[in-house]
Amino acid sequence: MIEDLVDRLRLLRTPGIGPVTFRQLVMRFGKPAAALSAVPDLARRGGGKAPQLCTRNDAEREISRVDKFGGRFLALGQGLYPRLLGELEDAPPLLIAKGDLNLLDKQAVAIVGARNASAAACRFARGLAHDLGQSDIVVVSGLARGIDSAAHDGALATGTIGVVAGGIDVFYPPENEERQTALCERGLVLAEMPPGTEPRARHFPYRNRIIAGMSSGTVVVEAAPRSGSLITARLAAEAGREVMAVPGSPLDPRAQGCNQLIRDGATLVQNAADVIEAIRVPLGIVRAPPSPYEPAEELNGDDALGLVEELLGPSPVPVDEIIRLSGAPNGAVQMALLELDLAGRLERHAGGKVSLRPA
Amino acid sequence: MIEDLVDRLRLLRTPGIGPVTFRQLVMRFGKPAAALSAVPDLARRGGGKAPQLCTRNDAEREISRVDKFGGRFLALGQGLYPRLLGELEDAPPLLIAKGDLNLLDKQAVAIVGARNASAAACRFARGLAHDLGQSDIVVVSGLARGIDSAAHDGALATGTIGVVAGGIDVFYPPENEERQTALCERGLVLAEMPPGTEPRARHFPYRNRIIAGMSSGTVVVEAAPRSGSLITARLAAEAGREVMAVPGSPLDPRAQGCNQLIRDGATLVQNAADVIEAIRVPLGIVRAPPSPYEPAEELNGDDALGLVEELLGPSPVPVDEIIRLSGAPNGAVQMALLELDLAGRLERHAGGKVSLRPA
Repeated sequence: MIEDLVDRLRLLRTPGIGPVTFRQLVMRFGKPAAALSAVPDLARRGGGKAPQLCTRNDAEREISRVDKFGGRFLALGQGLYPRLLGELEDAPPLLIAKGDLNLLDKQAVAIVGARNASAAACRFARGLAHDLGQSDIVVVSGLARGIDSAAHDGALATGTIGVVAGGIDVFYPPENEERQTALCERGLVLAEMPPGTEPRARHFPYRNRIIAGMSSGTVVVEAAPRSGSLITARLAAEAGREVMAVPGSPLDPRAQGCNQLIRDGATLVQNAADVIEAIRVPLGIVRAPPSPYEPAEELNGDDALGLVEELLGPSPVPVDEIIRLSGAPNGAVQMALLELDLAGRLERHAGGKVSLRPA
Repeated sequence: MIEDLVDRLRLLRTPGIGPVTFRQLVMRFGKPAAALSAVPDLARRGGGKAPQLCTRNDAEREISRVDKFGGRFLALGQGLYPRLLGELEDAPPLLIAKGDLNLLDKQAVAIVGARNASAAACRFARGLAHDLGQSDIVVVSGLARGIDSAAHDGALATGTIGVVAGGIDVFYPPENEERQTALCERGLVLAEMPPGTEPRARHFPYRNRIIAGMSSGTVVVEAAPRSGSLITARLAAEAGREVMAVPGSPLDPRAQGCNQLIRDGATLVQNAADVIEAIRVPLGIVRAPPSPYEPAEELNGDDALGLVEELLGPSPVPVDEIIRLSGAPNGAVQMALLELDLAGRLERHAGGKVSLRPA
């Protein structure tokens, strides 16, 4: 079991292997260890240099660091890994968790919003989180200032999960050290990045997909147009989860993001009862959890690589189109894409599109 | 022409003849004069006393009173009568108007809301009315305190119509005398009740159906749950018009009516552009204006009356069901209902239902 974790970690921490590539590799090769051994050859076949694999030593060092901190790893497709999160195409292959893992079994709702929210909105978020907690719903948020902090505070007694953008042992913002520590003890903290990672701007959208992905629905409380909270809402919608927003006066600029969300189809919510009503429907029709790693397809078509390479250009095209145009079996095309990916020559875009990186 | 108006007015001011009965009578008898002569017999056939017809004298007195005030009558199905309003099943057979009748040709939007609205909401309503006016949209409201007054003020320069619950020459609330007079001079005031009528509680829902009925859409700005503004919104929805609401914070009790409307499907609007976008669609697919008085059907089935009477009881039933159960032609059943109605023995309910009044 620990061997499998070492392999997973080595594969995941190897430069150029993101969640989607990780998933493709494990789907092709069945086991992380097999994928790991195949990576150098795949990259060379794709026309690039073999990536510097993460060493066993580095992986073991990370595991012992997490262990020392009192955290543990959750692997996609195994045991306690958050079920709804596992449905995302780019679900994190590994999460680092510290706190009460029982919270992962309960239905969760995300509450997110502006860092500089009004005092009234923060009070509202705290009350909403408290009331949802009373209905045995776990409140998920991002441990940021403003709405996030208020939401965690309101649900601390009943169950709340904070997802951080950096490492599990990094406190950000610094004034939240006490709150993050409290969540490690009485709630749960989750991180995708390795311990010690200082959060950077690019980490926050990844963090947001975890918040939205593990929750039945996301409630946005006071958000400016084009804010991170609206990204979380979009990610929730893309994952087929309920998007909810708390309205405000058109005269209040801080309400514009939420009002626009409602115009775009989000459900207007005013209290916990509204939230519970909104998330009840999708739960009733939820599909059986798919296995994140489908059995590897039979490999086939050694010359698919050249074909796929010819079909690709600098403009993103859907993978489905490549499969159709190439006439090659799905498995062969996916393998060719993997090879190009590992060679650093493929770029993956939103909506399952891919393009070739200029040489 | 004046003769026809006298007949219409006599028919309409006869006790027990409301807008639906009026329409049925004119549909049956083609002309108001013919309907008027038929009323006593119809009532007797229905088993009641002949109603006290409004006299020619009384009708002429009302006409000269309206004339002296500078007003004029608008008859359903003729000339300047508001086209959208004419589509209602219970459209007023006659309206009394004073002011700029050209405003009736333009697209109209209703803005309604609480009498005791916040200063911010009143400022918002005034601004919204002003901006709609800039887009050549006439603003309709009810000349009440609060939101109504603010909406009229905002659109006074571009075109606004006030619908009053009482007589056209009665100022209600009294402090609105100046505003109502301004609308008579620079806008338009409409009334359904005879001149001199002091508005009573029961008049306001009738007034509200005119506001909603003559407008492409109704915008509700700050309304308490179970308020008159929500009745107007419901009437607008029933007439197939766009219902719009301005959101507010859940912490503001005055926003609850509007937020609930949005949850129930009203369009969230934050500005004039949102309103114009919302009303554009229904206008594109608007149907040709129906003639309010269809040609009288051939009368038939003298014994339909007894049949219909047997089928009716104290519980409201749909007219369609009576027609189906009786097996009599539609025209004969409608005639029997008219007779019972004029005899004071029929009660008409919402949704086209009827019941027999206990003897």
